[in-house]
Amino acid sequence: MKLASLSEGGRDGTLVVVSRDLSRAVRVPAIAATLQAALDDWAAIAPRLTVCAAALDAGTAADAFPFDPAACAAPLPRAYHWVDGSAYVNHVELVRKARGAEMPDSFWHEPLVYQGGADDLTGPRAPIVAVDEAHGIDLEAEVAVITDDVPMATTAADAASHVKLLMLVNDVSLRNLIPGELAKGFGFYQSKPATAFSPVAITPDELGSHWRDGKLHLSLRTAVNGAWFGAPECGIDMTFSFHDLIAHVTLTRRLGAGAIVGSGTISNYDRSRGSCCIAERRMLETMADGAPHTPFLKFGDTVRIEMLDADGKSLFGSIEQRVEQLRR
Amino acid sequence: MKLASLSEGGRDGTLVVVSRDLSRAVRVPAIAATLQAALDDWAAIAPRLTVCAAALDAGTAADAFPFDPAACAAPLPRAYHWVDGSAYVNHVELVRKARGAEMPDSFWHEPLVYQGGADDLTGPRAPIVAVDEAHGIDLEAEVAVITDDVPMATTAADAASHVKLLMLVNDVSLRNLIPGELAKGFGFYQSKPATAFSPVAITPDELGSHWRDGKLHLSLRTAVNGAWFGAPECGIDMTFSFHDLIAHVTLTRRLGAGAIVGSGTISNYDRSRGSCCIAERRMLETMADGAPHTPFLKFGDTVRIEMLDADGKSLFGSIEQRVEQLRR
Repeated sequence: MKLASLSEGGRDGTLVVVSRDLSRAVRVPAIAATLQAALDDWAAIAPRLTVCAAALDAGTAADAFPFDPAACAAPLPRAYHWVDGSAYVNHVELVRKARGAEMPDSFWHEPLVYQGGADDLTGPRAPIVAVDEAHGIDLEAEVAVITDDVPMATTAADAASHVKLLMLVNDVSLRNLIPGELAKGFGFYQSKPATAFSPVAITPDELGSHWRDGKLHLSLRTAVNGAWFGAPECGIDMTFSFHDLIAHVTLTRRLGAGAIVGSGTISNYDRSRGSCCIAERRMLETMADGAPHTPFLKFGDTVRIEMLDADGKSLFGSIEQRVEQLRR
Repeated sequence: MKLASLSEGGRDGTLVVVSRDLSRAVRVPAIAATLQAALDDWAAIAPRLTVCAAALDAGTAADAFPFDPAACAAPLPRAYHWVDGSAYVNHVELVRKARGAEMPDSFWHEPLVYQGGADDLTGPRAPIVAVDEAHGIDLEAEVAVITDDVPMATTAADAASHVKLLMLVNDVSLRNLIPGELAKGFGFYQSKPATAFSPVAITPDELGSHWRDGKLHLSLRTAVNGAWFGAPECGIDMTFSFHDLIAHVTLTRRLGAGAIVGSGTISNYDRSRGSCCIAERRMLETMADGAPHTPFLKFGDTVRIEMLDADGKSLFGSIEQRVEQLRR
């Protein structure tokens, strides 16, 4: 099942069921007004949405209309919890190496996570709005899951049943604000502006065998200004699965329905697969050439993030964003 | 005006208007079902709630009933953004001094903030649920404001108009998990379990001249196991006002209606006023005696946090929590 939220009907948008091929959609006001409302009562509501999705795919849904990703907000235009992991530890190791720092061995055994702003999750075609190019505007292409209610102290084995939906993410980062913030010890805040999400969120069964062991085994394709930037395999070099991440974040507290848990920037040891953020490419350039030559994003630059299935069809629709300066 | 959310009617509770003396309340289903719904359309809804509050205080409200803080959830049982500052820099300086570390001078000029879990905000009488006493369970008594929509790049001068409500906070911390998390550089996560809030949230006008320049000029009274623990003045030694904190957190992104911004642990240079967290008292003990002797909280211990007005009447109602072990 694929779900999206149209940018209409209020702050939380309007829930629609989207056909598997992303061509058509149908409103479901009699089932749930918003995706958050569906997640709040998922066990009861998901089966009804599934019936609707089957009718849509069979061509028998009344009132179906053409699906337009540009009309979409984020699947959850606002959420109560958005925690992003850093599950591709080879990426962290590379960052450290580039600046000559040792990475603690514990990073291989215990996930790093940070909590992002969940009150302003932007749609797949919304601009990346920034105050200043000097902040070092970067994309971070990732995968995220949405959970139902997850009790405190959930194990990785028990976490599997709590993954209800998956999405693609552009976890926009302001690279030049990061060193100062991390030096203060409290983590990211100003360096992490609004995060963008794919047009649709999909249930794990849509991925078939590509979703297994809490990992998504497909490549994430990223382009900057229309040029190929990277397509690493999400299932390779993912040190911590989504199940591991959920166990980590529930050690001392529960997650409420609709919590979003991200993978962190996808990254493979096989550097021929390219990168999912400019910072990684700049580190590789620095290690190879002594200095980076790919600039961070400028106003007017574009980013595209997408994932295709084995038949080359888009699974989540594409994130396509243009960088814009804040209008005051 | 004073507002609360009863623990009934769903995940977001049921909004009630509470009398100034906290003795009575009235449901307002015709105005707004939840506090979040009121905040989503505050300019239109607040005046109607104010009319209701006036009738309640005049004794002319129909269907008023006795107000019971024990029946309350947090004013916002879940929120889209909960960011906590560390505005009392003397406290941070003390922490550093206690472990022989220098505090960067920048800490006096730029706020430290971290983002907390907003999907599980607990009511004023809910237990502090923890997995293990060895985590070092501590209270942190604070003040927080709730904002409406705040645009990106808001100045401190413009921030004033965005403060709609104030609350008291117990920002529970797991002290023994903090060093490991901060060493990793991504800030707090496991070390910050569910945060608790006062029974009512109040509009700034309820504070009269005690609310000025973005600071609350009254003392915050804290007791542990029924014994006085501290009562520092919130308006003294607050290096960054709430207006400064809002300007800081909106530098690169906007805040959505209902965002909660906290002060961090209240702390005065005048140590005779006591402390708002056990960690601070332990640091003072260490500096005086070479070792701490006040233990962190144990299962069964209780915490009480309250603020009185000039006439000795409770402004927000009290946070009263008991520490309990997670039942598996």
